Amino acid sequence: MAIVLGDNRYGKAENRLVRVDRDGDEHRITDLNVSVSLSGDMSDTHLTGANDKVLATDTQKNTVHAFARDGIGEIEDYALRLARHFVTSQESIQTARVAVESYPWQRLQVGGKPAHHSFARSGGGNRTTTVTYDGERAWVLGGVRDLTVLNSTGSEFWGFPREEYTTLAETKDRILSTAVSATWRFAADEADWAKAYDTALASLLDAFGGTYSYSLQQTLYAMGTRVLETVPEIVEVRLSLPNKHNFLTDLSPFGLDNPGEVFHAADRPYGLIEGTVLRDDAPPAGPAWN
Amino acid sequence: MAIVLGDNRYGKAENRLVRVDRDGDEHRITDLNVSVSLSGDMSDTHLTGANDKVLATDTQKNTVHAFARDGIGEIEDYALRLARHFVTSQESIQTARVAVESYPWQRLQVGGKPAHHSFARSGGGNRTTTVTYDGERAWVLGGVRDLTVLNSTGSEFWGFPREEYTTLAETKDRILSTAVSATWRFAADEADWAKAYDTALASLLDAFGGTYSYSLQQTLYAMGTRVLETVPEIVEVRLSLPNKHNFLTDLSPFGLDNPGEVFHAADRPYGLIEGTVLRDDAPPAGPAWN
Amino acid sequence: MAIVLGDNRYGKAENRLVRVDRDGDEHRITDLNVSVSLSGDMSDTHLTGANDKVLATDTQKNTVHAFARDGIGEIEDYALRLARHFVTSQESIQTARVAVESYPWQRLQVGGKPAHHSFARSGGGNRTTTVTYDGERAWVLGGVRDLTVLNSTGSEFWGFPREEYTTLAETKDRILSTAVSATWRFAADEADWAKAYDTALASLLDAFGGTYSYSLQQTLYAMGTRVLETVPEIVEVRLSLPNKHNFLTDLSPFGLDNPGEVFHAADRPYGLIEGTVLRDDAPPAGPAWN
Amino acid sequence: MAIVLGDNRYGKAENRLVRVDRDGDEHRITDLNVSVSLSGDMSDTHLTGANDKVLATDTQKNTVHAFARDGIGEIEDYALRLARHFVTSQESIQTARVAVESYPWQRLQVGGKPAHHSFARSGGGNRTTTVTYDGERAWVLGGVRDLTVLNSTGSEFWGFPREEYTTLAETKDRILSTAVSATWRFAADEADWAKAYDTALASLLDAFGGTYSYSLQQTLYAMGTRVLETVPEIVEVRLSLPNKHNFLTDLSPFGLDNPGEVFHAADRPYGLIEGTVLRDDAPPAGPAWN
Repeated sequence: MAIVLGDNRYGKAENRLVRVDRDGDEHRITDLNVSVSLSGDMSDTHLTGANDKVLATDTQKNTVHAFARDGIGEIEDYALRLARHFVTSQESIQTARVAVESYPWQRLQVGGKPAHHSFARSGGGNRTTTVTYDGERAWVLGGVRDLTVLNSTGSEFWGFPREEYTTLAETKDRILSTAVSATWRFAADEADWAKAYDTALASLLDAFGGTYSYSLQQTLYAMGTRVLETVPEIVEVRLSLPNKHNFLTDLSPFGLDNPGEVFHAADRPYGLIEGTVLRDDAPPAGPAWN
Repeated sequence: MAIVLGDNRYGKAENRLVRVDRDGDEHRITDLNVSVSLSGDMSDTHLTGANDKVLATDTQKNTVHAFARDGIGEIEDYALRLARHFVTSQESIQTARVAVESYPWQRLQVGGKPAHHSFARSGGGNRTTTVTYDGERAWVLGGVRDLTVLNSTGSEFWGFPREEYTTLAETKDRILSTAVSATWRFAADEADWAKAYDTALASLLDAFGGTYSYSLQQTLYAMGTRVLETVPEIVEVRLSLPNKHNFLTDLSPFGLDNPGEVFHAADRPYGLIEGTVLRDDAPPAGPAWN
Repeated sequence: MAIVLGDNRYGKAENRLVRVDRDGDEHRITDLNVSVSLSGDMSDTHLTGANDKVLATDTQKNTVHAFARDGIGEIEDYALRLARHFVTSQESIQTARVAVESYPWQRLQVGGKPAHHSFARSGGGNRTTTVTYDGERAWVLGGVRDLTVLNSTGSEFWGFPREEYTTLAETKDRILSTAVSATWRFAADEADWAKAYDTALASLLDAFGGTYSYSLQQTLYAMGTRVLETVPEIVEVRLSLPNKHNFLTDLSPFGLDNPGEVFHAADRPYGLIEGTVLRDDAPPAGPAWN
Repeated sequence: MAIVLGDNRYGKAENRLVRVDRDGDEHRITDLNVSVSLSGDMSDTHLTGANDKVLATDTQKNTVHAFARDGIGEIEDYALRLARHFVTSQESIQTARVAVESYPWQRLQVGGKPAHHSFARSGGGNRTTTVTYDGERAWVLGGVRDLTVLNSTGSEFWGFPREEYTTLAETKDRILSTAVSATWRFAADEADWAKAYDTALASLLDAFGGTYSYSLQQTLYAMGTRVLETVPEIVEVRLSLPNKHNFLTDLSPFGLDNPGEVFHAADRPYGLIEGTVLRDDAPPAGPAWN
């Protein structure tokens, strides 16, 4: 028996970068959280502490900033540029993964007109991407995170097995709420990223709101399917949907009925529904999801 | 020397209540975090554990839910109803404080039309209120929390004292960003709460974006002043503004300039600017801010 | 009617400072979160943006670090040195408040012996201090934060009013758990700070565990009293005790009893019990608690 | 092209369960966060919303509590009992995963003696387990989370490539700090779990403190190796080590040197070092890490 080094990677995580684009007086801002992760021939630093193959994580941070100098563009493209650079910059690096989360801002109204350089953080989910480049090709994931949605009706849950530990009553009307984390895989490393994101996001929301639901799994499948139907460049969608329980408050002790009006929003525990929807001819995912 | 009981209060904090209002098929939702705090003649429970004057915090929770049965209305009114109820419900309770935070949601588009019962959490700040009732009168605070804004230019900072520990360079152009926490005091316990909130919020944003700033204090004062100018029912505004630093990245080691384009968003430490703007004829605040 | 500037202050918050003390090969570490807040004649910067009276928050940060160069000592002394410095450094600054939170670490065992320079973060609460200096005298608060404790029995709750909205059953045996935030006021600006902290902390724990409790208020009062009894330099104790509810799980649907064995730890809502215990001859608190 | 359902699973996450064990007057407490995840033949609920194969997540929650009625024992055994139960309870469930995080508490001293029923949350890391059962065999992972450690010296970092974006100075003495997340795989589903945990934890700490380090990767490898050397039942260790940067403060502008004494603890970005150490004859991991 011998002890050996297995899979490993390292990088600089959560580089918080803000870029201002100036078009005359009119500014736009990009607000990113960028994480880099590199892997390759890293035995030396693990076994002896020799660092000649270790691109310092501080250097990675510098690169993230320097590459923003001439513009970010779409975050998928920015991540592709960075990932390709890291692999080519050092012989020891075989694979680079760059993950970007983009926080949405909206332009303020000032004096009744759209402001030139004033913004407020907005909701509606953070756009994400994760790019993996292995020296030969790149895999691109897109996605959205922290998109909290709620249907106040149009959701049932019944017909589940009743066994020894089952106490839950069946319901024909409940609140269905979740915080969407969706990640989708593109077939190729080129696409109209902005259009794909906008379409996928709209599809998720439309399918969530438009599905009369008998289970959150059914809603999940409808959401994933809708993205595949509307964005041809996407071949696979993975969704993680916490079931954010809203329990009807029992007001009967106070002589009151409660016809689906007053709820307690619970923190924990919560249901967690995770699933994948994909095209049956989707190309292999390679290291995209690693 | 003797040991005595001083100020004290107790209550149920962070009741997470969701209410659905149904107007035919068209729903509206209200998503609240409600905290109750009561004070009065509570010596017994502290000194001997006798609880006959202690309205159980579980009872407070029930009351929060029961009072939502017939509608919330504006959160200021809901908090007023609750606060008055608690003081009148028990002789031992002299003062009740009810704080409410309201999370914003927006109606989804489904199938190209406004959805009947589908919503997404939105940004733009959480509306807050804190009502204090002492058996004779009520004091009402309104406010907004978690409203993150940024000016990408129009901010300078110079002319500050240069002493032994000063290293900061003066600047004629910087990013100014903050997460606004604003609380305002109403002169009376009646007002058009919704209009006051909408106007105050718009005023804060307009003043933030519209003020060419030499210090965050100057911007704070402009924001508070604007609220007082536009909402006559408000007599005092308190603002807490963290200065969320965005530092220009030094790209010169890489042969690149950086004309106000690439920044690092820092977490800690941060500046914290707190101030009050009020009318010189504002009535006494009583226990409003306790 | 005119609009005027009211109370205000500003400073650098959450300076995360780590200091290593080296006694030969033997190291000690101090891990602090330091927040500075200054107030005084700050009208100019609010009204016109003139900053000649504004000690930059960046300068405050530098000072926090520079003052650590020759040793921290007890955090109360360190905060006193900083607060006095800020008031004397600028004529415009009338009052300085310095708050410090200290994170506990314990020395590791390495090779069966106490390590020279290796440590692990430990529990048991963070020591805190807040010093206010107004140019004439200093007020010193000490305290502890994030000290989570639990009694698995020895707690009852009954005899509370049963009214329209009361559903809670009385209990003669429950879990009592809280996360202690305690702040105490010293009579003077000199004391054996370390001994006072150790004694106060031990007293809080001993009183929490040793009090057979009929209400969390009773436990609070016992905890505050014990600190006053054991630390003569302390004249007032303020406690904020969330009642972290542990609800007995109903196992009867599964044919099981549950004699105080299985509980669900709830997040929200929670009770919140706040109270003050003080000596009847305590000197005035001045601005200590502002 | 057709759209199909891919990998999926669902369950109840973050069940917060507290158990009191009573041995006469002497109590012990167990404080757990339990997450269940089930997978199997779940097409129906995704495609049509038919739930006859869906063991409700509420039922899972009930089971987690009911199975605690007769004692938890070691968390690995508790997770094994639950995972086996879920797979055998429903024909549709092919695989169950149960993850448990256990929060450490220590017994208080009350009146100078170990208390019978009073405890304080302690540090030193949370013990974790993840058990996967597929109807035939079980895979057991153990681990520790939130174990924050620091070496105040004995760490160098130099010899890394200097390229276009490299600015970091080499150092022969730095602080090395991390929050250890370690997960280890057992060869079998039986072991002396408590002894394995205690030994693994002590080994991680001893190796962290005892390794003179030229890179965090080297320290990671030493930590994993030590666990494998001291716990024969463990065949693989995965470590995720954020490099929590402590930067030496530049005090030279104030005429002060800083010989490794005053540091700024940074939040973001941080290095993130992830690696696996395993026996070369480790049996296949199957679905253990999925």
